[in-house]
Order: sequence, then C-alpha cells, then structure tokens
Amino acid sequence: MLEQLKKPQEAPSRKKQKKELSKLQSELAVLQQELSKSNVPVIIIIEGFSASGKGQMMSKLISELDPRFYQVYSTSHETFEEKRRPLLWGFWNKLPSKGKMAIFDRSWYNRTLNKIHEEGYTPALSNSINTFERQLIDDGYLVLKFFLYITQKEQKKRLKVLRDDPSSSWRVTERDWRLNKNYEYRYKLQDELLESTNTDYSPWHAVINEDDNSGAIEILQIIKEKITSALSDGVAPSEFDSGFKPKLNKISKLSEIDLSPTVTDSYYKSTIKKEREKLQKLHGLLYKEKIPVILAFEGWDAAGKGGAIRRLSWALDPRGFDVTPISAPTSEEINRHYLWRFWNQIPKDGHIALFDRTWYGRVMVERVEKFTSETRWSQAYNEINEFEKELADWGAIIIKFWIHIDKQTQLERFEARQMTPSKQYKITDDDWRNREKWDLYESAIDEMISKTSTEYAPWVIVEGNDKKFARLKVIKTVREALEKRLADDDY
Amino acid sequence: MLEQLKKPQEAPSRKKQKKELSKLQSELAVLQQELSKSNVPVIIIIEGFSASGKGQMMSKLISELDPRFYQVYSTSHETFEEKRRPLLWGFWNKLPSKGKMAIFDRSWYNRTLNKIHEEGYTPALSNSINTFERQLIDDGYLVLKFFLYITQKEQKKRLKVLRDDPSSSWRVTERDWRLNKNYEYRYKLQDELLESTNTDYSPWHAVINEDDNSGAIEILQIIKEKITSALSDGVAPSEFDSGFKPKLNKISKLSEIDLSPTVTDSYYKSTIKKEREKLQKLHGLLYKEKIPVILAFEGWDAAGKGGAIRRLSWALDPRGFDVTPISAPTSEEINRHYLWRFWNQIPKDGHIALFDRTWYGRVMVERVEKFTSETRWSQAYNEINEFEKELADWGAIIIKFWIHIDKQTQLERFEARQMTPSKQYKITDDDWRNREKWDLYESAIDEMISKTSTEYAPWVIVEGNDKKFARLKVIKTVREALEKRLADDDY
Repeated sequence: MLEQLKKPQEAPSRKKQKKELSKLQSELAVLQQELSKSNVPVIIIIEGFSASGKGQMMSKLISELDPRFYQVYSTSHETFEEKRRPLLWGFWNKLPSKGKMAIFDRSWYNRTLNKIHEEGYTPALSNSINTFERQLIDDGYLVLKFFLYITQKEQKKRLKVLRDDPSSSWRVTERDWRLNKNYEYRYKLQDELLESTNTDYSPWHAVINEDDNSGAIEILQIIKEKITSALSDGVAPSEFDSGFKPKLNKISKLSEIDLSPTVTDSYYKSTIKKEREKLQKLHGLLYKEKIPVILAFEGWDAAGKGGAIRRLSWALDPRGFDVTPISAPTSEEINRHYLWRFWNQIPKDGHIALFDRTWYGRVMVERVEKFTSETRWSQAYNEINEFEKELADWGAIIIKFWIHIDKQTQLERFEARQMTPSKQYKITDDDWRNREKWDLYESAIDEMISKTSTEYAPWVIVEGNDKKFARLKVIKTVREALEKRLADDDY
Repeated sequence: MLEQLKKPQEAPSRKKQKKELSKLQSELAVLQQELSKSNVPVIIIIEGFSASGKGQMMSKLISELDPRFYQVYSTSHETFEEKRRPLLWGFWNKLPSKGKMAIFDRSWYNRTLNKIHEEGYTPALSNSINTFERQLIDDGYLVLKFFLYITQKEQKKRLKVLRDDPSSSWRVTERDWRLNKNYEYRYKLQDELLESTNTDYSPWHAVINEDDNSGAIEILQIIKEKITSALSDGVAPSEFDSGFKPKLNKISKLSEIDLSPTVTDSYYKSTIKKEREKLQKLHGLLYKEKIPVILAFEGWDAAGKGGAIRRLSWALDPRGFDVTPISAPTSEEINRHYLWRFWNQIPKDGHIALFDRTWYGRVMVERVEKFTSETRWSQAYNEINEFEKELADWGAIIIKFWIHIDKQTQLERFEARQMTPSKQYKITDDDWRNREKWDLYESAIDEMISKTSTEYAPWVIVEGNDKKFARLKVIKTVREALEKRLADDDY
C-alpha cells in the first residue's frame, strides 16, 4: 500500500498544524450533530503497526465529539465468547445504528492477520472481509479504513520510549520487539491482506503517522469529506458482483407438493420416542465436538412451527440450545443492517439455535408488504447465501424447514384457534390479512426456496397437513444430519 | 436445609405422576400467557448437586412454555468478561423484563460456592446475595430458588451411568468424582451458604430429585402457586432492614457553597497541562494494576458536565475509558430494575467509566417529576449505597461530582446557547421547565448528597460558575484519588 503514501513537500509549522487540527475537530463536532439526525451509520477503523499511535489518533478524533453518538471499541483481545463464534461475529455485533459512529481500535483486520500468522493466507479470508464490508455498504453504511504506518526505526524508537517510562513499560511486550525485528516480514503479510481488501467500494487510506499532527489532519480531513458527502448524497452502493454462485438444490414448487402423507398415532408414538433417544445422544456428542447447529423454521401461519420446535426440543438438553422467536424488528434492530439481529443470535460452537421465523422475512413479509425496496430485497438472496456460507465455513450444520400446509387446512386451524380460549392469543388480524395474500406469498416463497437452497444450507419442505407426520419428519431430518456429520468427521 | 425435605409417604404410580406433571405443564403454559401481559418479572433458579438432574428438570419446566417469554441461562462457566467484573454483574445483566421469565441453570450461588471453595466463607458473600435478591424483590421481581438433592449413593450411580454411555462419558470429569467422594464436605459448605441466604423474602425450596417425577411435580406446583399469587396480589416487598448504615461524609448544603472561586487563563493552561500529563501516566498504571474507576457526573443543566468530562478524557487513552451518557430510559430499561442499565455499564477492571448523569436520576428527576412512587425513591438512597458498596468492595475507585452553578449563571448560559447555532441542540424546553422547579430540585439534591456521600463513594461539589476552575477541580480530584490508591496499595 505504500505507493499511496506521500508526505507533503514542506510540512507546515507545528503551531499551524495544531490550529488546523483544532479547526477540523470543531467542524467534525458540528458535522456529527447533523449526522446524528441522519440515517447514515458510520464505521471508522484505525489499524496500524504496533506503536504507530492508534490510541493518540483516536484521542484526536473523538476529542470534540458528543459521546452520545459514538462508541470506541478496543478489539485487540479476542474474548471467550468470540473464540467460540465465527471471526466476524464480534464485529457484526458492534454495528452502529443510523446516525451513530463506531470507532474500532484494530478490527477484523487484526484478527485476520493473527489467523494468517498461525495458518497462512487464503483468499477465503479476504473474501469474508470483502463480503462483510460490501454488505454493509450496500445497506448504507459509511465504512472508513485507515492504516497507520511508521518505519522500523521509528517503531523501535517509540518502543524504547514506552519501555523507559514506568507508567507504560508494561505495555511493551516480547511480541512487540519481535514484530519490530521482523518488520519486513510483518509488512509483507499485512500488505497482502490490505491489497486484497482494498476494494473500489471500501478502499484503504494509508497514512504515515510521524510525530506531528499531519497524520491526524489527513485522517480528519477524509472523515469530514466522506461524512459530508454521505449526508448529502447517501452512501453509494457497491454495484459489485462477487461472482459467488453457490450450487443450488432443485426443489419442487409448493403447488407440486403432495400433502397427503400421514402417520398413525401408534407409529408416531413409538417412532418419536426412538428418534428422541437417538437425538439426545447425538446432542451430547455434538457438544463434545463443538459443532454448532442452526435450525431455521419457516412456514405458513398455523403450519405448526411452534409445535414442531417444541417436540424437537424435548430431546435436547436445555443448557445446549436456544429457541429464538423472531417478530417485527425493534427500533434498535430496524436502525441497523437487517442481518444484525440474526448474527447476534448465532450459537456458541456445540450449541443449537432454533429460529422460529428467520432472516427470510426479508424476502417474504418485507417483500410482499413492501417494507423494503425491490433493490434491497432482491439483493437479499445473495446476501443470505453469503451469510449462511460464512456460518457453514465456520463449521455449522444448517437446515431450513418450510412447513407447508394447504389453504383449507390453515382455515380449519385458524377457526379452531379462535374457538379455544387458551389458543386465541395465537391468532391475530395479521394472520387473516396474510391469508388474503396467499398467492403473493406463495410466489415469493417459491422464488426464495429456489434461490437459497444450497448444499451447505438446504431447504427441507415438510408436509404439514398432518402435524404428527411433520414433527416426525423434522426430528428425523435433524437426527440424520447430525449422524451424517458425526460420521463424516469420524468422531 | 435437609430438615425441609420430605418424601410423600406413598408415592403415586409412575403413570399417575406422569399425568399430573403433564397437567401442571399445561397449566403453567396458560399461566405464562397471563404473566406475559403482566408487570411481574420472574427469576427461577435451579441449583443442585452434580448429576442431580438440573437439565432434565429444566426440560420438564419449559416443555410447554412459549419461547418468546422465557430465557434459559446456563451459567456454570464464568466468561472472560465476567471474571473482570463484580461477581453479580453477569446476573444483573440477565434480569428479565416485566412479564418474562429467566431460568438459571446454576446461578450466583454456584459462583459463590466456587469462591468459598477457594477463599473460604465470609458473611460478606451471603450479604451480597441477600442484598441483590432483596433489591429485586422490592422492585417487584418474583424470585424462586430450588435446590436439587440426591444422596451420595445415588450421585455415584448416576455418574457411572453417564460415564458408561459414550455420548455422555465426556461430561463426567475428575471434579465430579472428587465432589462425590467429598460429598459430606461439599454438603456442609453448601448448607452454610443456603442457610445464610434462606431469607423470609427469598426462601429456598429444597427438593429431593429421585428417579421419578415427584421432584418436578413439587417444583412446578410451587411455581404455579407463586406466579398465580404474584399475578393477583403482586410480589410483597421485603420490608427488611439489612442494618447497613455506611458512614456518611458531612457536606455543606448547596446554598452554603461559595461559588466565587475562579482561575486565571494562564494558571489554567499551565496547570491543566501538568495535570493531564500526570493523569495519563496514572491511567497506564491503573490499567496495569487492573483497578476499575467509576466517575459519576451530575449537575444543573448547563453546569458544564460535558465540558468537564471532555477535558478530563483528553488525558485518557480512548481504549481504556468509556463515556456513558444517560438519558430517559428506553422501554427495555424501564421494564427492568432501575439499576439494570447502570450495572450493564460497569467497566472492566483497569478501565474507567465516566457517567454523564447517573443512577441518581432516581432521587432527582424521578422524584421531582413523580415518575416513581415515594416508597420506591425513598428506598433508593439505601439501594444506591449498597450498589456502590458492592463496586467499592470489588475494588473500584468511585467519585461522584456535583457540578454546581447559581441560577443566574444558568440563565446566562441558556441564553448564550440559544444564540449560538452550533449549541442550540443543547438547549430544550425541558431545560426551561426544569429551571422552574429549581427549588424542588435543590432540596432533592441536598437530601441526596447528605444521604449518599460515603467514604467509599464520596460526593465532590464542584464550584462551576467559572468553567475553568471547575474543570481543574475535577481533573485534580481524579488525579489525587488515583495517586492515593496507587500509593496505598503500594504498587
């Protein structure tokens, strides 16, 4: 990245610099007030070499800002919770909402670099990052990435100063000296990652951070310009095609599904008992092997999602699974990327997450009810395939159930619910309204299933007219998938 | 606790038990729907011996419940984030909101037991727990504590069964066998803690959990009764006096404060520079020694809280502090104990939390504007003293600043704000309305300061008519407190 770096021919005097910085800080404070009323969320990354002055840079950046509207995240330490989740999880979690700024001291880049150190570089690493940033930008996030450079000599000098001061000597570790010694090597490693993530839609800003204010002035100037432009024109979408085309399973249209299968009571009773016993043991092994499982339940209203989830969960240890019911987004959720609330619910490894409704709301209710523009929901098929790929690459077993019933069965269940006092809460006006739009929903669902049933995250259509048949199919499908994985991996 | 335990003379048949359990599960499901519309939050703790069947007990408990309204927390593992905070922090975090249930697999009891194992029992440990539970109950929480007993022989038998099944063998650790061998010792240790936390307002329910459904029936029955009674009559407050009377500092009334002190510009400039340099170094040492710092800022509108916080923070490394601005509670916050949102913001050890407004809103705005009943706000002085004591015992340095100005100065600043476009956002109708209630606020503040200025968390009144004087006093006070602690502890 160094070719980007240039130093002004004649640096202005220190006093002049200080004045300029101070002016920029005030301007940024005024701009932040405007930003806080806008729908633009801002992410600022401060990466850089050890002792390149990231802390001081952030001090200069936030000095006049209103703390209600920004948050600094120091992410150099990977927490226990993060270790047990995909690399990007801890960053998805920290997305700012509209009008706010998240400032990252180190970021997914440093985490990835550490991974490269241990396991070597693979293009999948940059791909994950590029996908993440593209998804944010397409959703209107302003992402600004800064990398602070210092020379090997300057780094050594600063490390010595830190070491010789008793209040900071403990900050300088063996690792810092090693990094300084292997400066060239580290530089190359970094550069590879930086080059491969220096995209049109999310470019790097490389800044030489010498012992004056010119680096800070450069950074604040860029932030000012980018925010100003985002406030007037919004953030331009990436218009980028990653070329990611996962292999799709061929699945029948809903209208072609035969809904006649049933089971007898006695078959159901004896089979579900056996299935549960098997599943219970598999859950133990899964936990031991730290395999995460994500089970997504979608289906028509009154199709029996809740019942199927409950019957399945009876076989599971309550300490090892969570049911996450998804309803209309809260204001916190609606002010962030739509995948944010789902990323937040990604289970720890070895745990099972059951979603009662899912991220597919984006291409069903949000599409049919026009809560989301066509541009955005039509991007979602790809975004969701990418999301699930990320989880699958992390090691998750993912199964998505569409519990299918016909219109007549739904009517009968709606009416039964209204007659039973303990079930009345389950039926609302919304359910009746959705029913009127059955055909619109059906074509949305057909498109959704055909575009997102991948090998790593398949859709399974469950014939739901007979509830017992449906519950058995769900539990069997899960049991088989766990067995298959545990056998494949030869545990 | 064993004297509480009784087994039915003649246990009903297994079939009859199963039927009874199933009936209770359905009743609980209906009750939960009612609960979800109420303002009662419910906490259920399932503690017990190793292999006493906590997991299965929870399965039975949740089997018919609606997952939208409960959450299971498995807390046996202490996370990294928790290790760096007070013991109860991880549990305050998990408080359910009104109408919801939090079910704890193990809890603050198990954590405390582990601590007792390492460091021995002290009454302070039970006191912390009793205070926590009393504060919840006084706020309307229904807290139900169950402890599952099995005999040493039964435990050994169950551990063998687990060990001999390949899907669960890995669950049985060396520690489990050790606990089984030292059953008597563990029993005594537990009993001491249980007895000392078996309060009138939050009693233990000791349950023998043999290999049938009688334990589950007993527990579900109690839960059903307690929820039913809470729904009709609410949760009775503890009416308990802990006898906790911290020594209070004597502080002048606001009307007696001399607001004339000022500093010259040149004195300010040179002094604040020196103070900042000292503070910067102290911050480094603090971080190294893992001392947490909590700085609370209160003051009249336009007193200069924001400015004082900003000047102070310029000396601090942005990676080691957070500014938390407190405004009106969100719906998530208002539906929980009022201290919940502050507990959530407790810094990691070695970090500094600056609160721009605080938990003292309870006895200022909530009192004056009558958002909270007199019964509740008048309890808050004691609750807050307890809260701060908990933090101080954990090792936190706590300083609370009241930035004081007179009425005339406030008027001048309000008017200046309205004249300056970049500052207009700082002045709202609320500010003018609050000003009209100056006298009501003043007496509330006098009472607050006189009742909550403890040795471990003192109030410092800052003469704020001269902003520079105020900023210097704040930064000096903090610097001196850090120096004192670092000297006391002889680092």
